[in-house]
Amino acid sequence: MRNGKTKTTLEQPQGLRPLAESFPNSRKIEVGDLKVPVREISLTDGTSIQVYDTTGPQGCDVRTGVPKRRAEWIAKRKDDKTPTQLWYARQGVITEEMRFCAIREGVDPELVRSEIARGRAIIPANIHHPELEPVILGRNFLTKINANIGNSALRSSIEEEVEKLQWSIRWGADTVMDLSTGKDIHQTREWILRNAPVPIGTVPIYQCLEKVDGKAADLTLDLFLETLEEQALQGVDYFTIHAGLLLEHVPMTAKRRTGIVSRGGSIMAGWCLAHHQENFLYTGFERICQLMAKYDVAFSLGDGLRPGCIADANDAAQFGELKVLGELTEIAWKYDVQVMIEGPGHVPLHKIKENMDLQLEWCHEAPFYTLGPLVTDIAPGYDHITSAIGAAIIGSMGTAMLCYVTPKEHLGLPDRQDVKDGVIAYKIAAHAADLAKGHPGAQDRDDLLSKARFEFRWEDQFNLSLDPETAIALHDESMPAPAAKTAHFCSMCGPHFCSMRISQDVRDAAAAKELAEAQAGMQQKSAEFLQKGGEVYLAAAGVDVPVP
Amino acid sequence: MRNGKTKTTLEQPQGLRPLAESFPNSRKIEVGDLKVPVREISLTDGTSIQVYDTTGPQGCDVRTGVPKRRAEWIAKRKDDKTPTQLWYARQGVITEEMRFCAIREGVDPELVRSEIARGRAIIPANIHHPELEPVILGRNFLTKINANIGNSALRSSIEEEVEKLQWSIRWGADTVMDLSTGKDIHQTREWILRNAPVPIGTVPIYQCLEKVDGKAADLTLDLFLETLEEQALQGVDYFTIHAGLLLEHVPMTAKRRTGIVSRGGSIMAGWCLAHHQENFLYTGFERICQLMAKYDVAFSLGDGLRPGCIADANDAAQFGELKVLGELTEIAWKYDVQVMIEGPGHVPLHKIKENMDLQLEWCHEAPFYTLGPLVTDIAPGYDHITSAIGAAIIGSMGTAMLCYVTPKEHLGLPDRQDVKDGVIAYKIAAHAADLAKGHPGAQDRDDLLSKARFEFRWEDQFNLSLDPETAIALHDESMPAPAAKTAHFCSMCGPHFCSMRISQDVRDAAAAKELAEAQAGMQQKSAEFLQKGGEVYLAAAGVDVPVP
Repeated sequence: MRNGKTKTTLEQPQGLRPLAESFPNSRKIEVGDLKVPVREISLTDGTSIQVYDTTGPQGCDVRTGVPKRRAEWIAKRKDDKTPTQLWYARQGVITEEMRFCAIREGVDPELVRSEIARGRAIIPANIHHPELEPVILGRNFLTKINANIGNSALRSSIEEEVEKLQWSIRWGADTVMDLSTGKDIHQTREWILRNAPVPIGTVPIYQCLEKVDGKAADLTLDLFLETLEEQALQGVDYFTIHAGLLLEHVPMTAKRRTGIVSRGGSIMAGWCLAHHQENFLYTGFERICQLMAKYDVAFSLGDGLRPGCIADANDAAQFGELKVLGELTEIAWKYDVQVMIEGPGHVPLHKIKENMDLQLEWCHEAPFYTLGPLVTDIAPGYDHITSAIGAAIIGSMGTAMLCYVTPKEHLGLPDRQDVKDGVIAYKIAAHAADLAKGHPGAQDRDDLLSKARFEFRWEDQFNLSLDPETAIALHDESMPAPAAKTAHFCSMCGPHFCSMRISQDVRDAAAAKELAEAQAGMQQKSAEFLQKGGEVYLAAAGVDVPVP
Repeated sequence: MRNGKTKTTLEQPQGLRPLAESFPNSRKIEVGDLKVPVREISLTDGTSIQVYDTTGPQGCDVRTGVPKRRAEWIAKRKDDKTPTQLWYARQGVITEEMRFCAIREGVDPELVRSEIARGRAIIPANIHHPELEPVILGRNFLTKINANIGNSALRSSIEEEVEKLQWSIRWGADTVMDLSTGKDIHQTREWILRNAPVPIGTVPIYQCLEKVDGKAADLTLDLFLETLEEQALQGVDYFTIHAGLLLEHVPMTAKRRTGIVSRGGSIMAGWCLAHHQENFLYTGFERICQLMAKYDVAFSLGDGLRPGCIADANDAAQFGELKVLGELTEIAWKYDVQVMIEGPGHVPLHKIKENMDLQLEWCHEAPFYTLGPLVTDIAPGYDHITSAIGAAIIGSMGTAMLCYVTPKEHLGLPDRQDVKDGVIAYKIAAHAADLAKGHPGAQDRDDLLSKARFEFRWEDQFNLSLDPETAIALHDESMPAPAAKTAHFCSMCGPHFCSMRISQDVRDAAAAKELAEAQAGMQQKSAEFLQKGGEVYLAAAGVDVPVP
């Protein structure tokens, strides 16, 4: 058991503590006419930094939902037949959503528009989801993370699901997928959407399967389209659709070590096998596009054949499907529907690059959205770590969004602590990727935190971190006294042995030496000056006397 | 607080539970005449797998220590003047230590000898440490991990330190560094060594500083040599020595964001600055080599100028020192002393490769031993994760040993849970690296675990994992009933929605189809056979009728 403690029960919904308790010395502020939310962290040296904020409006009644900030933007476009961000971008129009994202990312709105027009980025933003704070997903923007929530036949309640949403975005989830499969699936989704400032994704085939009492063979395209419309009208922003899994791929999985591990993939494989017909999501793909274009629901083209273990990585089934996803991307684009592509899964380190390379080539640089990948199979209970390793690497190669994995992966349904552990591990992976991509300003927070660390400004170090609560708690385990938070040492080395302190001495000594040399230099120059007869001179490269 | 629980006190030493409770269905066995320890995990399908084992002899009285398995091997070499593994390897001798490592790694003993002779691998094995189960560190062997333990001026007791050693190796630490700085430093080390089946490393300058009451300026080469001898006689297997930090490097750190973060590095920089003289560890390096050769203590050439934050990565100070470490490597080799090279620190993803490339080039492929690296600064409390990401990558590039980082890094002194969290994160990183390096047999455990997972053999999945306790505990949070451990589904999807089950159906269907086709094929062949007049034929590529 982690921490050597035993959990006796799953947490019940209890309401979240105020944001300020999770993030001391932070406040939410709004930027510009579009009221883009940012979180401003105030430091004890009088400076501050603004960081990307996903926490959404606070203190709203969950039965009312959060404010409908997009309502006006959407209303004025009501006559447009294809109200997708891709369609507008192709018309040269910079929408409010694009401008919103540009402010969030600190980039030119024209970059946002052109990347969307080219299919290299998407803003999943259903016209029936006015509560949304738009988010852009693409390789030239900040790396995003997704958290999955959802009940299951075994447990979980609707109130719990909304709280899981709020909990996920508190720690930084950029989008949330509702993977519910229970009987209250429609109502759960409604509550989640009305409370969601982030894009919500679903896997509609799950609900379809509920409608046919779990009999995959009874699924039809009409039922599917009907379900898509039902969910699109609620405001779902992106649909995972396993249209690339073809009948011919199914036998390729029979010799795999872990067969088909995607739920959606296995459902469609089951259907194909039962009917010995081509996947109706593939044959009916254009009708699906037409429907999704009406609402601006984005495709997340599902990788139903993703590898479920190291042994199955990068095999013929996986890459066969990926190639089809590339064909489907072009069809979706024809209908002005935004597309991203889902990726693996379980992949050893040396096989990750091939995934990114082939996805870029075959899928025409449509945004990649990967699950991890997990770089080994041997650590159930720690798969947030095994997968954060793969996620950081594929993120640094340009994956647009990383789907989180929690410590409960392969073992059970994540609880609140698992969700947080998964989100934080993925914030680390995404940020590491942004540093590697050289995203403008990404390193600012690292720099400020390291400066605070070096200067023993403990509270600033905590408050600049991804999870101040945990940083403070771990610090207090060793040095609980309040005075320790201003101590010029930490418990690792003790008061007489602190490398940071010695290093500061070195710096002071170096500065003193530089000052002494500068003074000596000035005296010499002064002597030279007098020797040369007192004429004024300047060194070619500027004044060459260092001024301390 | 992790898990939402509050810790009230640091754990007191309490004795570890029996190994079998941490690793159900495992037993320790000994292989061959050298009695190489392995752990055999028995599976419910009647098969088993042997895994590398670092846990050491169990049930010994800590006041007596563990058995002296090397005593005989060492005794018969007592007349050799330079009893180092490097010297023997260069003479063409395969020592018991080399043979022991070859069995552990499943490789040819000659490979072990030749890699050591070439300086590309080391077996840290002081002749005064007969309790050691030898371990090989090198890019062509399994990636190893090191755990740091040690008291500090603020807390910790001797009993606690021995238990930390045992706790670290239970979860897989391959070597342990004793970084104690308190007053009982000699006695603590003695207890650790007498109970250590793994190589023990130290940073002798810490004890030297104790001897001069913390005044770095009072350090001398003679005091240092005296301390080395004291520790070498106790049996320390490798010394971190910061001999590559030169006087000329010190000013390069003054403009750094976090200066010098290595304790040893800052001590030596302080000395250089105080005396305005060259580092005495550099000027006295040959005398140090002569001493270490007598006992076969290996060098871990310290990176006193490793970057302490992302901003300082790969700077002139860091690489200036690395280049000197390469020169020192050649000097140590001249004296037949084994060498490894310490590396960073904090490095963003895109700057990791340069570290490995330059280390290989400048240090002549001597084993690299890196601390992480941490790929971002913004996650105090989670630096086991930020650093496991960097460690997996640099490990896959050939780093021989990864020095763990715990969640307490930058915050405080790790307790038992932190040590375990750090070790497991690093076992993940090391194993991911071994998969990527294609180490023979590394994937076997992944394959068996994934097969168990696919076949719903829950207990086998748990027992094959790095930490069965945690896997079981997380599983039981969702499905506590004993029956659930044999359930053909898990709580993520529930009983009617399991992709593993559907996938098994697909596999069964495919097998049935293949059988049907095979039968149809045979009937056709049979008909052809009769048509052609009954002559016997074989297809070119073998019998072409698939036999199910």
